[in-house]
Amino acid sequence: MRTISTSTQLCAVIGNPVGHSLSPAIHNAGYEALDLDFVYIACRVEDVAAALGGVRALGNFRGLSVTIPHKIEAMKHVDEVAKVDRAIGSINTVVHEGDKLLGLGTDGPGALKALADAGVTVDGRRILMLGAGGAARAIGFTLAWKAAPAELILLDINEEMLRGLAADLRAGSATPIMDAILTPDTLEDALGRAEVVIHCTPIGMHPKVDASLVPAEFFRPEQAVFDIVYTPLETKLLADARARGCRVIPGVEMFLNQAVLQFEYFTGVPAPIDAMRRVLMEHLTR
Amino acid sequence: MRTISTSTQLCAVIGNPVGHSLSPAIHNAGYEALDLDFVYIACRVEDVAAALGGVRALGNFRGLSVTIPHKIEAMKHVDEVAKVDRAIGSINTVVHEGDKLLGLGTDGPGALKALADAGVTVDGRRILMLGAGGAARAIGFTLAWKAAPAELILLDINEEMLRGLAADLRAGSATPIMDAILTPDTLEDALGRAEVVIHCTPIGMHPKVDASLVPAEFFRPEQAVFDIVYTPLETKLLADARARGCRVIPGVEMFLNQAVLQFEYFTGVPAPIDAMRRVLMEHLTR
Repeated sequence: MRTISTSTQLCAVIGNPVGHSLSPAIHNAGYEALDLDFVYIACRVEDVAAALGGVRALGNFRGLSVTIPHKIEAMKHVDEVAKVDRAIGSINTVVHEGDKLLGLGTDGPGALKALADAGVTVDGRRILMLGAGGAARAIGFTLAWKAAPAELILLDINEEMLRGLAADLRAGSATPIMDAILTPDTLEDALGRAEVVIHCTPIGMHPKVDASLVPAEFFRPEQAVFDIVYTPLETKLLADARARGCRVIPGVEMFLNQAVLQFEYFTGVPAPIDAMRRVLMEHLTR
Repeated sequence: MRTISTSTQLCAVIGNPVGHSLSPAIHNAGYEALDLDFVYIACRVEDVAAALGGVRALGNFRGLSVTIPHKIEAMKHVDEVAKVDRAIGSINTVVHEGDKLLGLGTDGPGALKALADAGVTVDGRRILMLGAGGAARAIGFTLAWKAAPAELILLDINEEMLRGLAADLRAGSATPIMDAILTPDTLEDALGRAEVVIHCTPIGMHPKVDASLVPAEFFRPEQAVFDIVYTPLETKLLADARARGCRVIPGVEMFLNQAVLQFEYFTGVPAPIDAMRRVLMEHLTR
């Protein structure tokens, strides 16, 4: 860490709990690599409105990463939210700009960047999204609004969430949306058609690492498969897809890129991605 | 600076402006010397209530130093204030303890500690205080409540402030209080009687370093003379007193000790005074 001065800018992750957050390690590694006069800490928060009011009142408090359970509530207490993030209905980033708080999301853009960095084309392709929760909303709206997929296929077992996301996506974009209740049949059919598969549920996350939503034999070698789960670094779903010859994109790339985009909003300079990835991987492979 | 973790505790100075505050340098030097998981920044603040609400809501935000112009306003937005600090009417410290904000002052105790560290006895002595402003209130109440001077003599040119402080001190303690409008005659008389002189006005502060409130010939060798001004490190008043053979206590010792006491409230461990003094002197002798 560099020396603190009276100009040092503060950023923080707010959530509850935050004891296992990797964000301080990643962001501070970025500041150190570029010798930026910033410091990033973790704050457990219950009263989101008061916390955001404090950020607004405290000079040199530059921004927040917002994590569970505050992503929806935080959006209510900022001054401006981009249209796509209002459609998503949650934010993961607050930037303190002058006397205003700007809210935005980097989860969806982080996923899109992870796909692009891996050389996966989204435009003109049929994309299967498994899951219709908060992460799927963020990624789905980003794909529908910021890219041009041929079709978004949504599968989930929760009909209310599924139909809600599908309706919101149809209302907010021209992207063709196909939604169906997740069953063995609809899953097999969708995997038979999709060129890119994005897994947006927590299935397979540590400690239940032996679980996968997709039977291995459903994968086809020409598919690209992306899993937002990043503990373990390679989930069973990704290992199965890799074994079947698919191109796989690990979830850690989305996690890294949402932080990279936050870093650039907070500091205004290009993030030192390699230094940030190195620290993240050190923590995830301990 | 040590590495930031998710447990790192945050402290900050709030004021307006704060760009020249020495507090981040002093406190961070203390954390570094003891390898404590703390970081201390500077925040320009206009809305004190919102800033304190933010401290309350942000976990790991451990405490604040409060400086001009917020010392009076801050007292209104904390949960508990010690009786002596309520009497003084201002605080310079907020400690975030559980879900409560505790307000207190370390300016008076810092002055008392500076006197004690210099071997100056207060108990049983006649103390002359020049000035009846905020610093004089803090020091006067601390001397009257936490020590046992034979008499406190107050001189100021502002009658309202003078009579107000004298009345408040008489109401709140058993210490004999003598107050008089500052004139050449009352000044000479008071300096003829006082065993300890405490200068609590800004006269002699950089850049007007050639000014002193006290004609040099009024000092007597048996007196101890303390100046709260610390830029320059030795004011004309102190240089004159030293030349007359007095024991002199520089204001930097009060500034250091108010920070030392804050440090101990924030961290709960004895402050590394020498490390903090070293950094302070480095900044003041640049």
